[in-house]
Amino acid sequence: MENVTLNVSGMSCGHCVKAIEGSVGELTGVQKVSVDLENGKVNIEFDSNAVTLDQIKETIDDQGYDVA
Amino acid sequence: MENVTLNVSGMSCGHCVKAIEGSVGELTGVQKVSVDLENGKVNIEFDSNAVTLDQIKETIDDQGYDVA
Repeated sequence: MENVTLNVSGMSCGHCVKAIEGSVGELTGVQKVSVDLENGKVNIEFDSNAVTLDQIKETIDDQGYDVA
Repeated sequence: MENVTLNVSGMSCGHCVKAIEGSVGELTGVQKVSVDLENGKVNIEFDSNAVTLDQIKETIDDQGYDVA
């Protein structure tokens, strides 16, 4: 299991939190995802054998947010 | 048909626009609702015989926004 914290910009409200936690959380291999709205950070715990970091980043991007 | 523009604070993203336009737009008597995110304004065209301004304001409030 790996753990990464991404810097994500454009998250502004509770809907944004739900959009990201919902979409990333649905990915196979993602164990846990939590959004820190105030600091623009998303922490993800995932199994790198089941899902890649790139797939996670792409999922966040697809929701309309910029991943640094 | 009446037309009113409300000052609404706390709207910050596209999800907020959808939340307000969706909920207010579903009210019987509401003909049209449009959110101006940048200026924090919501314009509503409605039939005051079918829905009151208070009901509209309450619906926006229920979505978690402050109506001035």
